[in-house]
Amino acid sequence: MAEVVVDFRSDTLTRPSPAMREAMATAVVGDDVFDEDPTLHELQAEVAALFGHEAALFAPSGTMANQIALQLAVPRGEELLCDAAAHVVTDEIGAAAALGGVSTRTWPSAAADLDPATVADMIRPDGFVAVPTRAVAVEQTHNRLGGAVIPLATLEALRAVTTEAAVHLHCDGARIWHAHVADGVPLDAYGRLFDSLSVCLSKGLGAPVGSLIIGSAERIAAARKLRKRLGGGMRQAGILAAAGLYALRNNIPRLADDHARAHRLAEALSPSGVVDPARIRTNIVPLDLTGTAIDGPAFAAAARDQGILVSVLGRRLVRLVTHMDQTDDGIDHAVKVLPALL
Amino acid sequence: MAEVVVDFRSDTLTRPSPAMREAMATAVVGDDVFDEDPTLHELQAEVAALFGHEAALFAPSGTMANQIALQLAVPRGEELLCDAAAHVVTDEIGAAAALGGVSTRTWPSAAADLDPATVADMIRPDGFVAVPTRAVAVEQTHNRLGGAVIPLATLEALRAVTTEAAVHLHCDGARIWHAHVADGVPLDAYGRLFDSLSVCLSKGLGAPVGSLIIGSAERIAAARKLRKRLGGGMRQAGILAAAGLYALRNNIPRLADDHARAHRLAEALSPSGVVDPARIRTNIVPLDLTGTAIDGPAFAAAARDQGILVSVLGRRLVRLVTHMDQTDDGIDHAVKVLPALL
Amino acid sequence: MAEVVVDFRSDTLTRPSPAMREAMATAVVGDDVFDEDPTLHELQAEVAALFGHEAALFAPSGTMANQIALQLAVPRGEELLCDAAAHVVTDEIGAAAALGGVSTRTWPSAAADLDPATVADMIRPDGFVAVPTRAVAVEQTHNRLGGAVIPLATLEALRAVTTEAAVHLHCDGARIWHAHVADGVPLDAYGRLFDSLSVCLSKGLGAPVGSLIIGSAERIAAARKLRKRLGGGMRQAGILAAAGLYALRNNIPRLADDHARAHRLAEALSPSGVVDPARIRTNIVPLDLTGTAIDGPAFAAAARDQGILVSVLGRRLVRLVTHMDQTDDGIDHAVKVLPALL
Amino acid sequence: MAEVVVDFRSDTLTRPSPAMREAMATAVVGDDVFDEDPTLHELQAEVAALFGHEAALFAPSGTMANQIALQLAVPRGEELLCDAAAHVVTDEIGAAAALGGVSTRTWPSAAADLDPATVADMIRPDGFVAVPTRAVAVEQTHNRLGGAVIPLATLEALRAVTTEAAVHLHCDGARIWHAHVADGVPLDAYGRLFDSLSVCLSKGLGAPVGSLIIGSAERIAAARKLRKRLGGGMRQAGILAAAGLYALRNNIPRLADDHARAHRLAEALSPSGVVDPARIRTNIVPLDLTGTAIDGPAFAAAARDQGILVSVLGRRLVRLVTHMDQTDDGIDHAVKVLPALL
Repeated sequence: MAEVVVDFRSDTLTRPSPAMREAMATAVVGDDVFDEDPTLHELQAEVAALFGHEAALFAPSGTMANQIALQLAVPRGEELLCDAAAHVVTDEIGAAAALGGVSTRTWPSAAADLDPATVADMIRPDGFVAVPTRAVAVEQTHNRLGGAVIPLATLEALRAVTTEAAVHLHCDGARIWHAHVADGVPLDAYGRLFDSLSVCLSKGLGAPVGSLIIGSAERIAAARKLRKRLGGGMRQAGILAAAGLYALRNNIPRLADDHARAHRLAEALSPSGVVDPARIRTNIVPLDLTGTAIDGPAFAAAARDQGILVSVLGRRLVRLVTHMDQTDDGIDHAVKVLPALL
Repeated sequence: MAEVVVDFRSDTLTRPSPAMREAMATAVVGDDVFDEDPTLHELQAEVAALFGHEAALFAPSGTMANQIALQLAVPRGEELLCDAAAHVVTDEIGAAAALGGVSTRTWPSAAADLDPATVADMIRPDGFVAVPTRAVAVEQTHNRLGGAVIPLATLEALRAVTTEAAVHLHCDGARIWHAHVADGVPLDAYGRLFDSLSVCLSKGLGAPVGSLIIGSAERIAAARKLRKRLGGGMRQAGILAAAGLYALRNNIPRLADDHARAHRLAEALSPSGVVDPARIRTNIVPLDLTGTAIDGPAFAAAARDQGILVSVLGRRLVRLVTHMDQTDDGIDHAVKVLPALL
Repeated sequence: MAEVVVDFRSDTLTRPSPAMREAMATAVVGDDVFDEDPTLHELQAEVAALFGHEAALFAPSGTMANQIALQLAVPRGEELLCDAAAHVVTDEIGAAAALGGVSTRTWPSAAADLDPATVADMIRPDGFVAVPTRAVAVEQTHNRLGGAVIPLATLEALRAVTTEAAVHLHCDGARIWHAHVADGVPLDAYGRLFDSLSVCLSKGLGAPVGSLIIGSAERIAAARKLRKRLGGGMRQAGILAAAGLYALRNNIPRLADDHARAHRLAEALSPSGVVDPARIRTNIVPLDLTGTAIDGPAFAAAARDQGILVSVLGRRLVRLVTHMDQTDDGIDHAVKVLPALL
Repeated sequence: MAEVVVDFRSDTLTRPSPAMREAMATAVVGDDVFDEDPTLHELQAEVAALFGHEAALFAPSGTMANQIALQLAVPRGEELLCDAAAHVVTDEIGAAAALGGVSTRTWPSAAADLDPATVADMIRPDGFVAVPTRAVAVEQTHNRLGGAVIPLATLEALRAVTTEAAVHLHCDGARIWHAHVADGVPLDAYGRLFDSLSVCLSKGLGAPVGSLIIGSAERIAAARKLRKRLGGGMRQAGILAAAGLYALRNNIPRLADDHARAHRLAEALSPSGVVDPARIRTNIVPLDLTGTAIDGPAFAAAARDQGILVSVLGRRLVRLVTHMDQTDDGIDHAVKVLPALL
């Protein structure tokens, strides 16, 4: 098999840098199940402050961070609304329903934006004969919609809808850093719009492990108990928190490079009609192979033969993600090779 | 408070007739938890045959019938697709998620029909990174969409979609009798399109209690165990089955009268713009009060003062249902009184 | 196969009498999902009063009545204590855990009585590192312990334990009527000891269907919603309530005959060492075949050949239950035939 | 507040040593959600081999490792047997029931050993009317029973019972290393007795984070999916695996020192009657304060004033745990100070 030249499967593939490893090696740690890890405390406080909230809690994965937030916001048998391609309902092994008993209805996914009026129409008020809506979740940036960025004005309009309806608003912000870099919106401007957020340190920022749930002090206290039930209580997790702090403090601005590379890939592939470069604003490039002669698995196999790894998300859907462990040579290679496969 | 002249809240309000009571009083019964009730056996066999399936099982409610069918079709943490106004996701107290761990995504509800291509696009095939779709549910007639009837051709197209995708197709047929009467489609023509159906004896047909799950012998055997876990195992339920048999054998054709009365109500109210009579094909008349000066609770209260009971489903949504316990005088009274309230 | 002479499998097998059928045929009914069935209201009020509580709610089965009570008393992931042979943990298809997420620990089952001090030792107080105990359940009479009756003094001592620990005390009183008749304790003397009870109308009392949950008005209001989620909302259930009222008003005192017959069976079988008549105080006669040459399935088959039906509960455990649909001739036949099979 | 001289609250409090940190800093890592982390592969293979099994899977906590193993072994609504003080039913926030729907019955906890015959009597065979028993879990060493070690012969007898009954046997082996050191039984001699085990790297062995589930290749493949649903899928977890490998290879034999220190503490405290040194065989010393004038919280506060930290497990129950981050001076201090508090 050809040697791997460039790996576009995910931005989670990044390995910690020497400086990040040094931060881990020297971290001061304690037992976080006893809530005594100083480095975790530092990370949690720093993330909460970045987003303008009272508190934050470390979790071993974005799935756990999202699920804890949603289970706290939605009582068993009541309702969450999200879009039909949302990670929380599509990519978390059904955890919301399977573990939390959260009932979900979805609005149609569009490639770039969402319509607050559609969400408003779907909300079922409490007090009538229907499962009551308790939370709305959005994803910023949106993984399955090609790293799409929801404009701040749209989020503000959605916040007005959920405030009016007294419904919780959650942000799956695994890649909210990318939105911040793409649109120049401060993180706390996003943060203040939501009742809870999850953010991820290992998607694009380069940390090995970890996500955080962000919200009020009361909510985060409840999150600790739920995290323990789910098996997310770790001991000297300050080792991981040290990497996360390094990532937060050093690796956000450079995401602009990943965005530029993704755009370059999209432009190279757009003549085949599989992607519209105008829609590629962050680091994810989905290829819709519907109009081509090749399907997803075959495309991935052909790319693999050229040392290029991509993800297959559906029979005719392939995804490329840019990240900090790629080189200019790798991108050059992909730009040269991939169009010829279509 | 004014005496009740006519009650439009639901067709579940009907009381058993003298002949139906006589059938109950003389029913031969046994212990159904031991599967030894002859009248239940007769009802279950008759319903299965009506829909062209091998077997059927009695349940105390339509909610239980639907939920057993869905929990059998969808493993915990996997996916059901339905429309966003479907009874199974909106009116069953969140049971699919709360008790069965069923993850649900929804397509937008339209007033009259559904689009099989939209459903096809939403199905997530097994074997890729996503919660796999295991079942699709439709509702015939559709309660929250005003008793809408899905055309047989649409259902056949949907069946082709689900067969191609190897996905279970369930029908919430609580009022499938009304579709059969409205469109003249034989019950077994509907039945053969679905892997499972639920039907209800107490909505429109006049029986006091009872729904059935319909499917293969193997599926129904599994349903018995799940019914017991949910607390639906009853003893001499042949008493209720006798009423159900009477209802099935005597009360289907007369649903045409309920449809005509509903249409008459819609025509009387259409000048106010709250309902389009062309959409009222069975026995449910939803009134959308959005463009009027009165809201749902106020309209219901004003109608109540005139001896007319209606259901309030939302802030501006009211529902009228026709059924066999209403009189011509009651309908006349409503036709005269209700338009003036708008 | 031999004609059935006497059926000892369960007291749930009884069929409604002509007078009970007459009561059903003439019952005034309404839609109980709208809480408008007058006969149900009458039954619920009468049962609540019998046990000295504010309210009661009808349910289609004893399993549903118990499970609603337990799910209301124990938050998901917290703890119920009961004995290791309790119906709620052994015979309800795992519903407490499967549907309610109730964590259970058990004390060893003894043939006749329970030890409040053992229960006290097992209770985990709130506020320490452990799943907190929220409820204790007892079963009166106890099905798998041979219809054993817990003495009133024991229950009072247990009540003191649970009050001290601020833990809910539930009674699975499916056959509490039998305890009342055996020990002469008034039903409300039992009732006042418990925070919730379930009672059954179709075990011994002869009604075809139905159990009730008993408790405070607030608890019963919450029970209605949970009953609907479980699929236990029935429409004109007054038909069944009428039978239940008849059963309550007419069939309690005659349980003494069932007890006498059970004792007679036990005496006839005791020479084989399979049962101690001193322990048979109500209508259940378990036979422990461990010391004999025959196992449970073989004994049941041999009895069946003589027209006698019994239940097989384990490899060496068989159960006989007396009830109102048995005749003196049937009992005579069993007393003559069964000892010879051992 | 007095400076902490010695911390007996838990052996999870240990911090990684410089050599272990060096191992983490130089670990070769990959994305474990893609199953591409070489250091994790090395750890998983080494642990599987140590216990004589095919495969193992890393998890962020012992709770998650146990719960994955139990949820795989016991279908929803079916039964697990364990002792009434088992960590899996007492200290995991009710996860087995809350998340897995596992129904549990318990045998009484004894301080030192378990009785296979009691377990055999409790197993409910499949095919009769009862929730079927699917798994039995034991805890080696036993946390709440004072680090008790179950003798190998007892485990072999229990294995015979579960094999005969075709029931899964799970070992919560969070501290199985301590049993291995105390009794000299090889780890694979333990391992081969169980269908699944969990083991912990951060209890006593000094790693910062991590447990493993051990079993057949097929079981571990299923465990990966369940781990993802629970939110335990981590990315470059090889950082943690490197610490775990170091712990496994270096820190097992020294547990003998912890055992000796625990015994020394027990001997010092035994004159007060709060502990029997004969029962202290590993590193946990529970103090039963029932016969003394001080309760748990007061004892802990008084010890704290002397720079000694202990855990309070109940109103009259306190626990001391020895571990590698304690010094001889700390132990000397405790031996001198603690007896005087009683």
